[in-house]
Amino acid sequence: MIIAVDAMGGDYAPANPVLGSIAAARDAGVHTILVGDEDAVRQELGKHDADGLPIEVVHASEVIRMDEPTLTALRSKRDSSIRVCTRLVREGKAHGIVTAGHTGAAMAITKIVVGSLPGVKRPALALTVPTPHGKPAVFLDVGANVTCRSSNLVQFAIMGNIFAEDILQIKRPRVGVLSNGEEATKGNELVRKTVALLERTSLNFIGPVEGRDLFNGQCDVIVTDGFTGNAVLKAAESIAELAFFVLRKELLSTWVTKVAALMMRRSFKRLKQKFDYTEYGGALLLGVKGVSIICHGRSNPQAIKNAILVAADFYDHRASERISDRISELYAQHIL
Amino acid sequence: MIIAVDAMGGDYAPANPVLGSIAAARDAGVHTILVGDEDAVRQELGKHDADGLPIEVVHASEVIRMDEPTLTALRSKRDSSIRVCTRLVREGKAHGIVTAGHTGAAMAITKIVVGSLPGVKRPALALTVPTPHGKPAVFLDVGANVTCRSSNLVQFAIMGNIFAEDILQIKRPRVGVLSNGEEATKGNELVRKTVALLERTSLNFIGPVEGRDLFNGQCDVIVTDGFTGNAVLKAAESIAELAFFVLRKELLSTWVTKVAALMMRRSFKRLKQKFDYTEYGGALLLGVKGVSIICHGRSNPQAIKNAILVAADFYDHRASERISDRISELYAQHIL
Repeated sequence: MIIAVDAMGGDYAPANPVLGSIAAARDAGVHTILVGDEDAVRQELGKHDADGLPIEVVHASEVIRMDEPTLTALRSKRDSSIRVCTRLVREGKAHGIVTAGHTGAAMAITKIVVGSLPGVKRPALALTVPTPHGKPAVFLDVGANVTCRSSNLVQFAIMGNIFAEDILQIKRPRVGVLSNGEEATKGNELVRKTVALLERTSLNFIGPVEGRDLFNGQCDVIVTDGFTGNAVLKAAESIAELAFFVLRKELLSTWVTKVAALMMRRSFKRLKQKFDYTEYGGALLLGVKGVSIICHGRSNPQAIKNAILVAADFYDHRASERISDRISELYAQHIL
Repeated sequence: MIIAVDAMGGDYAPANPVLGSIAAARDAGVHTILVGDEDAVRQELGKHDADGLPIEVVHASEVIRMDEPTLTALRSKRDSSIRVCTRLVREGKAHGIVTAGHTGAAMAITKIVVGSLPGVKRPALALTVPTPHGKPAVFLDVGANVTCRSSNLVQFAIMGNIFAEDILQIKRPRVGVLSNGEEATKGNELVRKTVALLERTSLNFIGPVEGRDLFNGQCDVIVTDGFTGNAVLKAAESIAELAFFVLRKELLSTWVTKVAALMMRRSFKRLKQKFDYTEYGGALLLGVKGVSIICHGRSNPQAIKNAILVAADFYDHRASERISDRISELYAQHIL
């Protein structure tokens, strides 16, 4: 099993993708292909003791900049590092993709070049979110599909469920659909139709859930459309940033609080870790052949490494095949 | 100007509504009518030195419990405290309502008994949210209208704008519509139609904004449909609670961190204040005649008092008339 890593994606490329690949090879023996400007990548590899590690380099002559419009990136840059990654997957030379590059371009190019799994109408972007105890929850779609039908949300539930089972090792994940209240009378038309369909599946469906259930551990998989998911996720990130900002300002205000802050720096570190995205590396584009993990542009080597391990784990569990199988069951049962 | 206060609403009724009314009378000379079980309310008033304050009591024989279905509350309890409050406004005996009771029932009863302002198609629930510096932002609709049309969102923008100008004293509030990205290509159909309409108004419309702009101070008024608004708001509350939960756990883990926590207890208090809803008392149901402020069930007397002051302020600024005027301008300009 081989993972294609976009060596040019992210704010710290090629350094961090290269370090992430080296760590994944050293710590878990995962085989990667670093895709990007060959000279730059080999030079970066030469800085570290990477000889003998299962790391290949494949050249790509172009890079998609973070600020490029997705459509331009899609049409004009035929030899971008992310596009070459997707080609490797299409040709069977790699089984998953990790990139810290342009999210929109990575999603669009993966969908076009690699394509969806049999039966999957719309791939979705899934992210893990922190909860008070134990395992995180899976939240999707966080931005791949602005407008959705109930059948799309049912497919997202299947995909999120497999992610929770295979990667997070949660047995019988509790699946909910995001609504504005738990009562059956609440929810918009999309939610009510989705609830009716999900009740007919064999998933451990717990019904409509509220925004508060995202981070309170009451639910393992929460599905919504990409518009709502994106708004919710960015607002949650933003209020967490605000909380840290206010706390930092308060703690730097007097010498007593400065000393206290020093005394509890480890606690703050663990708090930040809890809200850190890097544990599972990034957002997973679920429903495409292979799997595509899109890391934050600022990802550190640890985040890239974790993303590579998740991609490898996903392949090892045959998660894609399981998604396809579960979805074709729903077609057979006339739920979809 | 007189504000009707639901003396039976909330987890600490009638104590907190009574204390809130007393504080509003003492500190700002606001005249209130406490509505509820007359004996209980008078007994509570008797515990404090309320003689001579501009506080009346009007009897209501029923109370809507927090766990009652809205429809039952609406149909069966014709003499509930919240319903009597709305009747006082309809009869011109009061000019605004403050309740810490059942949100759904309060909204529904206010809309039915008091009715919407001329020209307002859908009242909306607005809440202030914290930002890093200075004034909070106004976010609406946070749950009154699950499904909205673009013309509704334009009306919400007008109402939020007046709230920001009159209550928060923000000049030329920056108005945005919540989307999944700032680019014109992003957004769902509702957002794109709303953007096209808002661009034609005289509002200081800054275009589509993202979830992160809710809490970063980039925008003063953010409009969305009640489904998305509710999900976003509850998720934001939930992640803030999670952050405080994790931090508390960390700080109680060793004696060093316990001492440090003691040293910075004032900082934590100010942090909590920043995320406290009580400053403006609660959510405002905008677009109904008079104004209706729905406080959190757990509201303390300070929150009730602040809500009473906001309701009084709203009336003093003739905010309702200004909302009606601005909306009829939009009809005249064929924007609505």
